[in-house]
Amino acid sequence: MQITGAILVGANDRTGGSTFQAVDPASGETLSPAFHEASPTDVDAACALAAEAFPTFRDLALDVRAAFLESIAEEIAALGDDLIVRAMAESGLPRARLEGERGRTMGQLKLFASVLREGSWMDVTIDPAMPDRAPLPRPDLRRLNVALGPVAVFGASNFPLAFSVAGGDTASALAAGCPVVVKGHPAHPGTGELVARAVRAAVAKAGLPAGVFSYLPGTTNELGGALVADARIKAVGFTGSRGGGLALVKIASERPEPIPVYAEMSSVNPVVLFPAAARNRGAALGEAYVASLTQGAGQFCTNPGLVIALEGSDLAAFEASAAAAMGKTPAGQMLTPAIHGLYSKGVDALAAHAAVETVARGPVGEGVNQAQGAIFAASADAFASDPVLGHEVFGSSSIVVRARDMDEVKRIIRGLEGQLTATVLFDEEDEELVAEIVPLLAERSGRVLGNGWPTGVEVSHAMVHGGPFPATSDGRTTSVGTLAIARFLRPVCYQNLPDRVLPPALRSDNPYGVARRVDGTMTQA
Amino acid sequence: MQITGAILVGANDRTGGSTFQAVDPASGETLSPAFHEASPTDVDAACALAAEAFPTFRDLALDVRAAFLESIAEEIAALGDDLIVRAMAESGLPRARLEGERGRTMGQLKLFASVLREGSWMDVTIDPAMPDRAPLPRPDLRRLNVALGPVAVFGASNFPLAFSVAGGDTASALAAGCPVVVKGHPAHPGTGELVARAVRAAVAKAGLPAGVFSYLPGTTNELGGALVADARIKAVGFTGSRGGGLALVKIASERPEPIPVYAEMSSVNPVVLFPAAARNRGAALGEAYVASLTQGAGQFCTNPGLVIALEGSDLAAFEASAAAAMGKTPAGQMLTPAIHGLYSKGVDALAAHAAVETVARGPVGEGVNQAQGAIFAASADAFASDPVLGHEVFGSSSIVVRARDMDEVKRIIRGLEGQLTATVLFDEEDEELVAEIVPLLAERSGRVLGNGWPTGVEVSHAMVHGGPFPATSDGRTTSVGTLAIARFLRPVCYQNLPDRVLPPALRSDNPYGVARRVDGTMTQA
Repeated sequence: MQITGAILVGANDRTGGSTFQAVDPASGETLSPAFHEASPTDVDAACALAAEAFPTFRDLALDVRAAFLESIAEEIAALGDDLIVRAMAESGLPRARLEGERGRTMGQLKLFASVLREGSWMDVTIDPAMPDRAPLPRPDLRRLNVALGPVAVFGASNFPLAFSVAGGDTASALAAGCPVVVKGHPAHPGTGELVARAVRAAVAKAGLPAGVFSYLPGTTNELGGALVADARIKAVGFTGSRGGGLALVKIASERPEPIPVYAEMSSVNPVVLFPAAARNRGAALGEAYVASLTQGAGQFCTNPGLVIALEGSDLAAFEASAAAAMGKTPAGQMLTPAIHGLYSKGVDALAAHAAVETVARGPVGEGVNQAQGAIFAASADAFASDPVLGHEVFGSSSIVVRARDMDEVKRIIRGLEGQLTATVLFDEEDEELVAEIVPLLAERSGRVLGNGWPTGVEVSHAMVHGGPFPATSDGRTTSVGTLAIARFLRPVCYQNLPDRVLPPALRSDNPYGVARRVDGTMTQA
Repeated sequence: MQITGAILVGANDRTGGSTFQAVDPASGETLSPAFHEASPTDVDAACALAAEAFPTFRDLALDVRAAFLESIAEEIAALGDDLIVRAMAESGLPRARLEGERGRTMGQLKLFASVLREGSWMDVTIDPAMPDRAPLPRPDLRRLNVALGPVAVFGASNFPLAFSVAGGDTASALAAGCPVVVKGHPAHPGTGELVARAVRAAVAKAGLPAGVFSYLPGTTNELGGALVADARIKAVGFTGSRGGGLALVKIASERPEPIPVYAEMSSVNPVVLFPAAARNRGAALGEAYVASLTQGAGQFCTNPGLVIALEGSDLAAFEASAAAAMGKTPAGQMLTPAIHGLYSKGVDALAAHAAVETVARGPVGEGVNQAQGAIFAASADAFASDPVLGHEVFGSSSIVVRARDMDEVKRIIRGLEGQLTATVLFDEEDEELVAEIVPLLAERSGRVLGNGWPTGVEVSHAMVHGGPFPATSDGRTTSVGTLAIARFLRPVCYQNLPDRVLPPALRSDNPYGVARRVDGTMTQA
């Protein structure tokens, strides 16, 4: 598959006025070809096609839409090593990581195909008529979830495959029956185009309307803003910075018809280290902490950016072990010069902060755009008195907050903003304390995990990758896992309508064979 | 139970600076006693108590919270006829209607109690650990829905019982485990206080923290604004005007931590009259239309404010029959002088509109604040060219749009804003056309109903009383029926945590005996 730099509007390749190029962050070199910047005209064309495609795509038989998702996975596989090589050049991420991410991307698409076929995502609910009920008869009521309409997806820089063009947001939106218009991330436009061409090939093979998918490369905020403002777009999926997410939320809320924005934005992912665990295995945990913190140069939404623990010799041992590990961990390649610049600025600010102690710095990188790891420490008082210390520094930087007692630990937790994850590191003797702390953490996060590290995010039914504001703009949802489909659905009730007028899933003969709740009780087909 | 005019903050009766009184809309007379206006200090106190009560109330055993909801219903019943008499005086609604509404209010509370015990609202989902999976083991993941936090509820004028102090929003929020702070509607403060005292009695009998419920009477927008702006409030339920709803949405979105607002605002509830139905039974449908339109002086969110049909003699017969019925339908008592004023203004504007024909007016009322019914007509072109003709006039006013052909009907539908309901009136010969039109209506509404009238809203599992903006501020939900509980929940995932630390519904022994999805498959307890 050729990378041409085109704008992919439905089945058409378009060109624009200005162009931009990708940069290899490991070398600082500019990569060919040049990519055309999508314009408001392209946004308009893509949204018009998406709106046109919507009724057909929404009403597809479940199996047809499921097969389409599987076909996208196959087309991505068919891109072969070209995809991996280009993604390596554009992201600086290593081969093994990108091969794993490709597997995850394909797995997500197939998982949503299975979700589609299983059918409980529609939440089919039937209250049969009660014609003889007094004083008033009950009508026949049938409810199911339906697609919202065309969805705008903004890819993330740190997952050029799994959270970009055909990543989690796109997979869940397509599964729901929503056409997708992707605003491509400018850090990996070639990777994006390859995947977009794979999706387009699947659209064509399935004989679907071309408007089911469009891909708009570009570098400007104006492009993203025009897409979110388009009246035909009915929801937005975004993974990125807090500033970027909030800007889209604002545009969406000021439309004549406001729409939901699912922005996954920022999180420091607090880790609470309990006393017995610190005493029994502080040194080992310190090493594991650095491994999680520096993985992928710390460029994960769920990076452990904050450790909370009781001050004293056990914590000192944890810190010493972490410092030793950090000293031996090479600097990590970052995704873009801009991300590296922000990281360095954030770390320098913490290092210069009067109330912050530098516990350890990793080795200085040998190449360009490499993250020199950093571990800082502060007292609970200092942490509580300056909100900046609780803000995310995207990359392998973390701060240890030393509390005098568990009450202070609780106070720190109560002062935290919403988080994607919260972690408890504990031994059996800690369990009573853990039982007190976990509800406080659950109140402020989407996932609470025990004796592990938050950087692994399983794609499954029970996963929640979400959390209260500002971790996300809508804490009622998840962007990873099968529940993500719910973001792009709304319920509709049909009352006293004959079978031939009803959506198939609501008809008497239940042609899809989905489980349905009838008069309050779940029934299998 | 005495009506004192107090502000009910948890277990305490408080007084304020200024006072206001209710007005009997049927006589225009002021009713005793005077009610204290809640102040920002009262908001602060109520929210502080609610936040304090939240963890206890959220973590109550399901059966205890369910019994509490049932106890509220019993306490409302125990208010006896005092409640009905006061509500009649404050609302102008007749006894039978209010007795029915009281039954519905109690029924809602009991229905949510049954939902709580059944447990599927938690959507418990377990992906068991796979320690031997390659290349990486899968952790144990357990997800459930948890309460958002304290909820602010704004009662509706038109349902002083079923959508006010202990109405649908309060019942669903309490069911979810959210403490509730009610901003009382100033049109029925005595009714509100009586119900608030009933809820308070149930709180005390159950031995719950007093902050589970507070009641703030008041007349000002500032009071409502302060409540929505309070950092401890985590969601808002509102039923009322578009202006009021949008004002709350704005305040909520500008908070440091934005929160969801579920505002049910406005709808004209289009009714499409199909050719064969018009031909076969136009006269009967015309009569039934007026009965639905004038019921309760038209003061229903689901009032049929718009009829779309093909022009011609069949539609003329429908209109003539409707006009005759309207001429015989006495003016209806409206809820407040303000609502009556807005109604009259809206009707006068339509009557004076150059492109609008007055088909019929009802008799002029004999008392004060009575709605003189009105049916108007306009061509499809006229309707399409002035958005004002598509706006809700709250009360018994409706407009018939005469289309030249079905394409024009479709065009009108495509131009409609989001609606709570859409209705199709058809005979068997119409079904092919109906099958084309219903998807267009479903795209723009929360409920599509056949051969009935939208004014009846069943409280059940399959009901949707919601719809795309501006029918509501969040079309992904419903404010009537059991699904309403979902508005006040968010998912949380627990990873690799021992039973004693987990919420009961996630523990291995499943103490509540709820159905759970395990590894993607539903399992009964």
